[in-house]
Amino acid sequence: MKALFIGGIKSGKSKNAEEFTLMHAKTKPYYLATTEFIDAEIAQRIELHKKQREDRFITVEESLELSKTVSKCDDIVVIECISMWINNMLFHNKPHKEIYAEIETLLELENSIVFVLNDVGGGIIPDNKLAREFIDLSGIISQKIAAKCDKVFHTVAGISTKIK
Amino acid sequence: MKALFIGGIKSGKSKNAEEFTLMHAKTKPYYLATTEFIDAEIAQRIELHKKQREDRFITVEESLELSKTVSKCDDIVVIECISMWINNMLFHNKPHKEIYAEIETLLELENSIVFVLNDVGGGIIPDNKLAREFIDLSGIISQKIAAKCDKVFHTVAGISTKIK
Amino acid sequence: MKALFIGGIKSGKSKNAEEFTLMHAKTKPYYLATTEFIDAEIAQRIELHKKQREDRFITVEESLELSKTVSKCDDIVVIECISMWINNMLFHNKPHKEIYAEIETLLELENSIVFVLNDVGGGIIPDNKLAREFIDLSGIISQKIAAKCDKVFHTVAGISTKIK
Repeated sequence: MKALFIGGIKSGKSKNAEEFTLMHAKTKPYYLATTEFIDAEIAQRIELHKKQREDRFITVEESLELSKTVSKCDDIVVIECISMWINNMLFHNKPHKEIYAEIETLLELENSIVFVLNDVGGGIIPDNKLAREFIDLSGIISQKIAAKCDKVFHTVAGISTKIK
Repeated sequence: MKALFIGGIKSGKSKNAEEFTLMHAKTKPYYLATTEFIDAEIAQRIELHKKQREDRFITVEESLELSKTVSKCDDIVVIECISMWINNMLFHNKPHKEIYAEIETLLELENSIVFVLNDVGGGIIPDNKLAREFIDLSGIISQKIAAKCDKVFHTVAGISTKIK
Repeated sequence: MKALFIGGIKSGKSKNAEEFTLMHAKTKPYYLATTEFIDAEIAQRIELHKKQREDRFITVEESLELSKTVSKCDDIVVIECISMWINNMLFHNKPHKEIYAEIETLLELENSIVFVLNDVGGGIIPDNKLAREFIDLSGIISQKIAAKCDKVFHTVAGISTKIK
């Protein structure tokens, strides 16, 4: 079973994705943290997230090799988040082709996966070329994931509406 | 009864929130205008909004103390808008704790309230720290309000879809 | 029959609008390309779009006079996209009144039309005055179009949800 939770910044998608993951776990679910770059602000967010997770998840940290990491998990995995992972891949100069290939591999795994993704395409097209590249990649990847997911939820104001 | 109308800029959420408020009024509903900072552009928008409201609402103006103002109203109140109010509170250096407390107080009132809020988290994470702070606050507040509302509507292209 | 496909950048709205248009064509549908300004990046996008369309559509190119062009079509027309057209009209210093009038004329035609529009109001209000003008125009036009359409679809992650 695969599911996608997509929504804007602070829409509540992560909290709902985590609850969904807990509900679908056989014993104890995995939390795959993709964050690689840590400054004071991000460290604060991570600490807050960790508190919210408590001991309900087995946390694994991996910023690049998602499919390899997920394939080792023996229960459902929530990936927090695909947007951060795209960012990491771009930072490490991975070509788009490789980014798409990794997503395809991930989607072909038998594992139950809950994807969390920022919906970043809702504003005006930015002047910044890198920002446009990120929005395009993120949009194409969200389409690829949604197409293969059994369930897709769009989150607004903490409310996740099933759109697939 | 409490309801939230959330949507992007010029999505039509205000118009629909006003119609919803009129439909649920016992006699004459209240329009709580939260705008504090007025330049030529905003003055023009206010004038346009006033014309649209005509004499269907009792207008009250309050940029900070929402719960105190709402508690004095003897019919349903539409608050236009919570986003502007967050902006005012930040400008007056109110700590986040106080902003959240005021929202909690508002949500505990017996009054019927229709909240209007800009959905601002749909783009890429901005470079600007203040913009990020505003988006985070706005997102958390939208979740708090939605959780306590009987009805939540997401507006796109003038169409308000009930998501709760 | 008139329909609107609205969604963020790379949400998949164009692909879904094209499939919808093909499904509703009597013989061969029209593809009205509104792009006027072509740099290397846009040229690349156009080439990609053309390949995706193959020979399933009759392509017509018109960057300003939409109603005149559509009225000559003898089958359903998908307009790609209204956002680019608004951009063109602003670049040619057309007053808002004229932009709205052209949309009204278009909506009164008997032709079957599928409108594609970027939802650009989902971020924070930009500092840039021109950007705000574009967002406002785009929002008002999306409301005008949606009000007259038989069907409206909101697209997220490639999934178009019928909201009207």
